[in-house]
Parts: sequence; structure tokens; C-alpha cells
Amino acid sequence: MSADGSRFDPLVVVELTSDTKEEAISWLLSRIRDTQQNGGAELQVEQLEQLGPGVSAQEKENPNLFLVGATRQRLLSGAEDLGLFKEFHDGSMRGFTCANKHNFKDFQGDGDSFLSMAECQYIIKHELDTLRARDETHVPGHQQVKLYPGKSIIRRLLSKGILIQVFPLHQKEELKRLSFSWYQKVKLSFQPLDDIRHYYGEGQALYFGFLEYFTFALVPMALIGVPYYLFDWEDYDKYVLLAAFNLVWCTVILELWKRCSASLAYRWGTLSRKKAFEEPRPGFHGVLGFNPVTGREEPLYPNTKRQLRVYLVSLPFVLLCLYLSLYIMMIYFLMEGWVLSVHDEEPTFWTGILCFIPSVIYAVVIEVMNLIYRYAAEFLTEWENHRLESSYQNHLVLKVLVFNFFNCFASLFYIAFVMHDMVMLRQSLATLLITSQILNQFMEAFLPFWLQRRRNKKMIRKVQIRKTLEDKELPLADQVRLEADMSTYLGTFDDYLELFLLFGYVSLFSCVYPLAAVLVVLNNITEVYSDAFKMCRVFKRPFSDPAANIGVWQLAFEAMSVIAVVTNCSLIGMSPQVKAYFPESDMQLILWTVAVEHGLLAFKFILTFLIPDVPKHIQINLSRLEFESLEALKKKKMLEATELSKAIQ
Amino acid sequence: MSADGSRFDPLVVVELTSDTKEEAISWLLSRIRDTQQNGGAELQVEQLEQLGPGVSAQEKENPNLFLVGATRQRLLSGAEDLGLFKEFHDGSMRGFTCANKHNFKDFQGDGDSFLSMAECQYIIKHELDTLRARDETHVPGHQQVKLYPGKSIIRRLLSKGILIQVFPLHQKEELKRLSFSWYQKVKLSFQPLDDIRHYYGEGQALYFGFLEYFTFALVPMALIGVPYYLFDWEDYDKYVLLAAFNLVWCTVILELWKRCSASLAYRWGTLSRKKAFEEPRPGFHGVLGFNPVTGREEPLYPNTKRQLRVYLVSLPFVLLCLYLSLYIMMIYFLMEGWVLSVHDEEPTFWTGILCFIPSVIYAVVIEVMNLIYRYAAEFLTEWENHRLESSYQNHLVLKVLVFNFFNCFASLFYIAFVMHDMVMLRQSLATLLITSQILNQFMEAFLPFWLQRRRNKKMIRKVQIRKTLEDKELPLADQVRLEADMSTYLGTFDDYLELFLLFGYVSLFSCVYPLAAVLVVLNNITEVYSDAFKMCRVFKRPFSDPAANIGVWQLAFEAMSVIAVVTNCSLIGMSPQVKAYFPESDMQLILWTVAVEHGLLAFKFILTFLIPDVPKHIQINLSRLEFESLEALKKKKMLEATELSKAIQ
Repeated sequence: MSADGSRFDPLVVVELTSDTKEEAISWLLSRIRDTQQNGGAELQVEQLEQLGPGVSAQEKENPNLFLVGATRQRLLSGAEDLGLFKEFHDGSMRGFTCANKHNFKDFQGDGDSFLSMAECQYIIKHELDTLRARDETHVPGHQQVKLYPGKSIIRRLLSKGILIQVFPLHQKEELKRLSFSWYQKVKLSFQPLDDIRHYYGEGQALYFGFLEYFTFALVPMALIGVPYYLFDWEDYDKYVLLAAFNLVWCTVILELWKRCSASLAYRWGTLSRKKAFEEPRPGFHGVLGFNPVTGREEPLYPNTKRQLRVYLVSLPFVLLCLYLSLYIMMIYFLMEGWVLSVHDEEPTFWTGILCFIPSVIYAVVIEVMNLIYRYAAEFLTEWENHRLESSYQNHLVLKVLVFNFFNCFASLFYIAFVMHDMVMLRQSLATLLITSQILNQFMEAFLPFWLQRRRNKKMIRKVQIRKTLEDKELPLADQVRLEADMSTYLGTFDDYLELFLLFGYVSLFSCVYPLAAVLVVLNNITEVYSDAFKMCRVFKRPFSDPAANIGVWQLAFEAMSVIAVVTNCSLIGMSPQVKAYFPESDMQLILWTVAVEHGLLAFKFILTFLIPDVPKHIQINLSRLEFESLEALKKKKMLEATELSKAIQ
Repeated sequence: MSADGSRFDPLVVVELTSDTKEEAISWLLSRIRDTQQNGGAELQVEQLEQLGPGVSAQEKENPNLFLVGATRQRLLSGAEDLGLFKEFHDGSMRGFTCANKHNFKDFQGDGDSFLSMAECQYIIKHELDTLRARDETHVPGHQQVKLYPGKSIIRRLLSKGILIQVFPLHQKEELKRLSFSWYQKVKLSFQPLDDIRHYYGEGQALYFGFLEYFTFALVPMALIGVPYYLFDWEDYDKYVLLAAFNLVWCTVILELWKRCSASLAYRWGTLSRKKAFEEPRPGFHGVLGFNPVTGREEPLYPNTKRQLRVYLVSLPFVLLCLYLSLYIMMIYFLMEGWVLSVHDEEPTFWTGILCFIPSVIYAVVIEVMNLIYRYAAEFLTEWENHRLESSYQNHLVLKVLVFNFFNCFASLFYIAFVMHDMVMLRQSLATLLITSQILNQFMEAFLPFWLQRRRNKKMIRKVQIRKTLEDKELPLADQVRLEADMSTYLGTFDDYLELFLLFGYVSLFSCVYPLAAVLVVLNNITEVYSDAFKMCRVFKRPFSDPAANIGVWQLAFEAMSVIAVVTNCSLIGMSPQVKAYFPESDMQLILWTVAVEHGLLAFKFILTFLIPDVPKHIQINLSRLEFESLEALKKKKMLEATELSKAIQ
């Protein structure tokens, strides 16, 4: 219960460092509570300590944990500001406005359960983010934390380390229900995507939707792959059919996913939502100046300087890393050759085992290099000082993708197109795929879970009672402290990256190792469970992210599918079957292969144009909405004109 | 002077057939004059006869010529409805609204010269087009011309042949000034693009802007080509450099054009203008039903039926035509071979001349086939019954482009890549290029001009006075009749198509015939003059078309530049110079060529992503406008909230 007696629902936790000055805290709280007319956020905020002591109150804990909530009215007006799309009474999705709130489908009474908790938390995050300094030159009590009119207070506190974290609270009961229907029962059904979206937001739900779609799309490949493997059809020259199938498959599934994704995004109301104006990243720095777009005072950083950093430092660094990766690949081939020669001289059981060792070592080294490179890429991209989060993300994704692609597939390309050794390609592919899957599952789910368990145990020992997050009677204060200690979920980046590489293994080379698709299907099924598990149990709840599509990853997968066309055509051209058609001339064979490949690429691009990205019925719905708003505008103008003419008379 | 004494400026001419029933005419006029509240167009309309008899009044002429105009107030509100962008006082382009009309730069007094005549005519055309039937079931007096509520009256009258034409009037004085600065003085300066836009609208001006840009872009190619030709560098194996330059050139100029085009469109205010809701084409027919988007009753035609027509009739027809074109090409090669054998047997001067005959005949046949195919394509696309003009245009452009590309370039590809005969390629290219240029200039400007002259003479003889359009004292009635008899300008389609083919000649093969660029530059310079001449003197004034870019042609040119990369790489790979690097193995050579080509294509796509389509300063301006409207919206909401809270208190 808050001071004025109205019910206070805590939604978001704000944690400041324990040595924050008293005056800074009271200033921040008053700014958060102040009305919007006065430039405040008009939210409710309470210190955790004052909401009844938790069991741990006697311990020495950080007292600066604050809970933020808002009145129902404030949340609804926030939803309107954000342009949140909700279901209208006629089933279409429309931007919510308070004026005609009663026309929305789920708006009953005073709209208590109209917004989901994830939406409320997203609104509060947005309101906190856009809480701006007025005439303060620095944060009271912290001379070193400078402010200027219009600067986002939360972002400044975050970048200066005074604000440790802002995170949304879990909903214990709903989480329990979700996790039960999601991963705790073994079943042959789809994931509860709508529930995932309801709890975690559209970005997460789209990832799990894509994971599911990708798994189902792989089933035909897997079904074809199994008999190839079982009946030993794969004498390395009968793979032409498989390669041709592969080539069509990877084009078609990506086109269809676009439509699928548009359907999901339409259902969730993010398809036609306009993007809000993007704020500078918290870490962005520069000389104070006036933004030419907003006219606000904010740090400016010349674009040319950033370009210089990108092209003179980052680009050479990436190239160097690629060279290093190639160098390590050559070492692997040396090792491989040495082991083979040992095995050939005196073949025993142990030398047979030894043959697999270089591949396994190489697979581990690849994963380690990917990991190290990932940190370097993050550091470099941070240093490039991008103004917008989206630009930062694009540069990071590009850097990481290029290197990971090279690192994982260079050896396979080398074996296939330089060494022409299909047996080795198959063996290498299998080792890489299996090793990286095992490593990934371990690093992604079991390691964080184990760390979390250790941390939880320490925590529970500290509070002297054996209650965990699932426990219903856990007091709010303990729940908040428990969640504040959980690891932070860093977004879907790594998950998509993993799918991207798996897609690469299947689309590029699965014709020589048809079991790849089967392995990836199996991996994806466990991936659903481990990802769901880590979302529900290991990590803090993330803020929802109203995504309309999978963004830059669609592009990445499409680039991969173009490379797959080239690779599969070359593999077909190299097959003995096809070579038999051109007994007298290799040149003819190559020319034909190139011609067919160009034709296929052209066909692929034409297909991309021909298949509409958004299904027909959604297109109709969207244009109906647009038409209606145009008509309404016209009617309004007409009315105004009538009134004017009446007034003149 | 109109009946009520206010000044009547005629802007648009509407011509009905002479046997239109009297009641239909009076109904149409009353609908056009009726107020907007009553569903009319609220325009002024007068019969030509009643505006003082022209000199030709005594003759038997069609009396059903009507002049349409509008009050200043009506035009301004029409401009607001259309979302016309005009220059704001701060130099940015904003959507015009009557409410803050005084903040626009050129709005002086009561805004008499604020809208250009072309804009006024465009507004009137739009208002006429959106004049809809209310409860009429047919046009009065014409039982067979059915109507239903919401049907555009003008479009129905047009498709039933009662309405002959709607066209905007020329402005004699401004036309004189424009034509003087545009083509009547020989000068070394740019075209008056802003004046062209002012008089003809953005679509026309963009075409002339593109023509100018393309000509200037060709200058470096021409400058390199001339010494190649003069100093006889072109012994057919030194063209590698030229091909490499060509390849970079055609990628870069298209990317830069996008930025250029965005700058022009921003300056003219069409870049960020929203497209109006598209009406069905006049010729579209189907069973009456309810449009799922607008809810209006209108003819519907099932999409599947249209798809069947496209894929089962049009596609096979196009393929058949392509086959025919190849067949004729083979006949040409037979003729060529026969002529060469005659020349080789007994070489005389006449047989030398004879050698050129097949090429010239073939070039003429190509032009004739293009022309015939053009009519067939128009017929087929009309028959496919597209609902929207844009969809009709896309299908037509695609059909025509594919065939013209094949027809013009197939023989060159055959000579280059099957016969490997660079001497013949060069000769063939020169003949094709020169013949088609001569034919085009003739067909495009001189023929229509001659026809026009004949028609004018007849007309002038009829009215018994020797006054032409340029004559200042020509009465309005005669001017209208003179213009009504002029040919109708059919849009920029043919002009762009010609540029597309010229671009093809240069980008694909100019490395073997460096003079091609010079010829195209010369052609373009005369093209500017002849196009300007025909726009000003031969054709009726077209309605302006607020285009933001050159539309589907950008795509067509880019497709051509991709093909150019492939072609130039192949030509480089085939050159003796490059072959010398791979003396022992043709296979190596081909593999390298293919690898380089793939690299270049990838680079081209990356470049397309890297170069922003809109220059930075325009991007900033656009996002500033967007930001300002967002802020204004927020402020408005805040004010409403304040008022609400005051009212509650």
C-alpha cells in the first residue's frame, strides 16, 4: 500500500548503488513522481524497505532498491503515447487511444486487465527513459554527473554507474503457468506463442516462433536424409538430387517465413506500429551541441570520425582476425595430415581414435575463437561510438556474422573446393556440427543454470529459509532481492547466431552429409526446452521489445541462402554423375554450371519479388485501416468547413 | 466572365461527343458545380460556345467542349486534400494546410499566384476523378451507361466513350518563355528543370533530369572512348581496362542518381508526400461486389482468374515472341553469312556495300518488331484486367522490357559469346546503334511534328486566318479547338525505354566499340531538343504527375547494370591479354573469371547498402519534420489533459 491509500502494484525495480547520496535519491524520486505538466514521469515509486521488511531485512543489504508502478489511468495514457496496438471490437488491430477505449475488445469496466503486465512494464520503461533533465546542471549530490536540459536522466545515471539496473518483475503465478505449458510437459504440440508474447513481448515470441518454424521447415530435409543414410545411398555421387532439393528449399522457406512473421506481427499489433523517435545510446559521448533534428542540446560526434574508426581500425582488425582464422585452419590441416600419416603407417584402435582428435580440437578452438572475437567486436563497436542503438546493433551483428561464418565454414569450403575430398568433408562436417552443438547447449543453459543455483543457494542460506522463487508465500522484498541477483538476459543475439550457423551447415553442405538436418532438428527440439527453461528460471525477466520482424537476421539468412545456391551448384558441378555428361571437356561443364547457377540466382530474386511479403488478407486489413483514417480526416475537414460557413452566415 | 461576375480562369477542357444527350450534359454540369457537402465537385464549368464565339464558330464543330475552373479558395482546399507539399517560410517542404497558409513562403495576399497552373490543373483533375455517383443507376439520357453509388462518373463516361478527353490548357506566354530557355537558344547550360517542373509537373521534370544526368554521366566514358578510337588502341585485345571501368561506372552512376533524384524530389516536395488512395482503372471491369478495403460497391475481378491469364496466356505469348525474335536473328546470321560469301568470292565496291545491308535490314526489323510487340503487350495487359493503374503499368513495363532487351541484344550476345567474333560484334553494334537512333529520332519528333503541321494547316485553313498557337491574339475558343486537335502525349514510357536500350548498348558492349558512348551522348543532346520541342509544340499539355522518383525504371536500369557486370567480366575473361596469364589451362581462367565476377556482384550489392539513397541533409530535414509533428501531437495531448483536469476542478 502506498502513502495515499490507493493500491500500488510494483512493476519495475530500480536499483541504485548503496553509496548514492540522499539528496540525489530524493531528487530522482520527486522527478519520477512529479506530474507530466511539470516535466515529471507521473509514476508511483516506493523504496523496497518501506513496503514491509523482508525476511532479510536484518542483513546488510543494498537499501537503494525502488519499486516503480503507475495508476491505471497513467498506464493507459502511456499506451496511447507509445502508439500501442490493441485488438479493436471488429477484430482488427488499432492504435490505442483513451478517447475511444471502450471500442477495444478486451476493455472492460475501467480497463484493469486491459494491458498485460509486460506492456505495463514496457510503458514504465519508456516513461523512465524519456524523463528528461530540466535546468539541472548536475545530479544533486553528485557534482561529477553532469546534466543538460533534455538529457535522459535514467540513461545518464546508468552510464555513470549510479544506477545499477532497471528490470521488470516476474509474475510468479503466470510464470508457473507459462513454464508448465511451455516446457514442463513433454508433448507433441506447438509452443504457446501467444502466451510467450503476453509474458515476454513480441521480440522473444518472434524468436521462438522462428525457432519452431525453422524446425518444422527442416523436417522434409530430415525425412529425405534418413533413408539416404540408412540405405547407404550416399556413395558421394548420388547427392545431386539432394543438392537441388536443398537449393529450392532454402529459398522457399525464407520467403514463407516472411509471410509467417508478418502474420504473427499483425496478430500482435506490431506490424504497422510506427517506431518511436530513437534516443542516443546510454554510452554515446561527444561534444555538446545542438542536434539538427530535434534542436535539443546533446552530445554530437562527427560522422566522419566514426567512419574513420570503422574503416581504419575495425575493418583492418576484422580482416586480421579472418587471416588468423585461416592460419589456424591451416594448422588444423597440418595436424590432420600428420595424424593420418601416423594412422596409415601402423593402424591400431588408438590411432583410429586419434584421427578424430584434430577435428574435435579444431571445433573447440573455433568456439573459443568465436567467444573471444565476440568480446573484441563488442569492445570495438562500443568504441566506434554509435549514436543509436540500432546502428550499434547493425555494426555488431555484421562484424560477428562475417567472422563466425568464416571461422565455422572456411575449413569446409577448403575441403570441398580445394581438396575435393568428399569423405573428409563429410567427416569434418559431422565433427564440427556435433561438437558445436554439445558445447553450445552446455554454455547456454547448463552453465548459467549451475551458476544461478550456486547464487540462489547462497542467497537462501543468507535469508535462512528454504524458499525459492516458485514458492507462493515468498515475501515481495525477498522476491525482488532474489530477482535482482539473477543473471541478465542479453537479448536474442546469441540464439539467432546459433540458428544462423546451423542453417549454414544444413543449407550449404547437407547434401554430402544428409544426417545434418536430422541432427539440427534434434538440436532445435532440445533448444526449445533449454531456451524456455533459461528464460523462465535462469534469467531476470527482460523488458518486452515490440518487434515487427526478426530484423537484420532475415537479411543474414537470405545472404546465407544466396551462398547456398552458389555452393550447391558447385557441388553438383563437381559430382561424378554430372561430369559423366561432359566426358570430353571440363570447360563445357564449368560453363554450364555457371550458367545454371546464374539462372537460379536470377530466379531466386524474381521469386523474392513475386511472393508478396505480407499475406493478402493482412494487406487488405491494413489498407482498410489506412482508408478509414483518410476518410475520417476528410469528414472532419468537411465538418469544419460546414461550421465555418455557418459561422460566417 | 462567368455568370456570377467573378473572374473565371479556364484551366481544364472536357470534351464530350457531339451526340451526348442534353440531359446528360446538364446533369454532369450540375454535379460538377454542386457543393462538396452535396457530393459535388464545387468547380466552375462553362461551355466553350458561351464564352464568346471563336472565329470558327460558324463552322460545324463539336459544341460539347467545356472549360473547367475553380475559385481560389476551392483550389487551396483541394491542395490541402491532395497533401500538396509547398515551401515553408523556413525553407523546408511541408504539406499545405489552409489553416497556416500564411506561413508558406510564396503565399502573398490572398494567395493568387501561390499554386502554379500545373498544380491547379492537377487539383481539378483529381476533383473531377473523385466526383462519384450518388443514387443514380445510369447517366440520364444514356440508359446503357450504368452507374452505382460511389463510381467515379468521369471514369465511367471515359470508358463508355461519351467523354472523349480531359486535358489541361497550355499557357501561351509561359510556354513561350519556357521553350525559349529550354531549346530555342543554343547554349552550354543545364536545362531549366525547375521551370519544366513548374509547367509540366514532377514526372516530366524527373525524366528530363534523368536524361541530363545520364548524358553527363556518359561524358567520362565518351572521353575515354575517343582516344581509343582515334589512336587505334582498339585492336580488340586492349579492352580489358575499358571493360573494368565500364563495370564500376554503371554501378556508381545508378547509385548516385538515386541521391540526385531524392534531392530533386525533395526540392519539389514530392519525396515525402503520401500517395493518395488509388482508384480502379477506367477500363477495369468485373462483377459488382463490395470492395473489402473501402466497403464501397465496385466491380470485383478474382485475382486467381487474373493470375491464370498472366501465367497461361501472357507468359506463353511472351515466350513465343522471344522464340520468334531468336528465329529472325538466325535468319539474319544466315543472310550475313551468304553476303559475306558473295563478297569473299568476288569483292567489289557493291559487294562491300552489300555487307552492311543485312545489319541495316535487321535493325529496321527489330524496330518494327518492337513496335508491333508493344501493341500486342498493351492489348494483353489490358485484357489481364488489372484493377490499379500501377499494377497495369508494372505488367506492361515488364513485358515490353524483357522483349526489347532480347530483341535488341540477343544478336550481340550470340556474336560475342557463341561466335567469339569481336570484329563482327563491333560492326553489328555500330549498325544497330546508329540505325535505331536515326529511326527513333524520326519516329519520335519529326513524324508527329509533320502530322501536327498537316492537321494545323487544315485547322487554320478552316478558320480562315493564319494564326498559330504562338500568336498572342488567338481567341480562347480557337486556342481550345487547336489544342483539342493536338496529339496526346502518352507519358514518359517510350522515352525511358529508349534510354534503357541506349544504356544497355553502352554498359554491355561499349568496351568493344568505345565510340558507342560518344554516339549516345550526341543522341542524348539531340534528344533533349527533340523531346523539349515535342512537349512544347506537338503535344497537348499533359496533366502533371507528382512523382518522387523514376519508379520501376530505376529497377530496370539496375537489372541492366547487373547484367553488365556479368557481360563485362565474361568479355574480360575472353580477352587474349587475360588468357595469356593462364597459358596452360582454360579451366583455371574460367574459374578465376567466375570468382571475380561473383566478388564484384557481392561488392555491388554491398555498395547498394552502404551508399544511402537519400543525402544526409535531406534525411535530417525529413526527420526534423517528423519529430516536430510528433512533438506537436504530444503538446496537443498535454493541453487537452490540462483542460480536462481544469474542467474537473
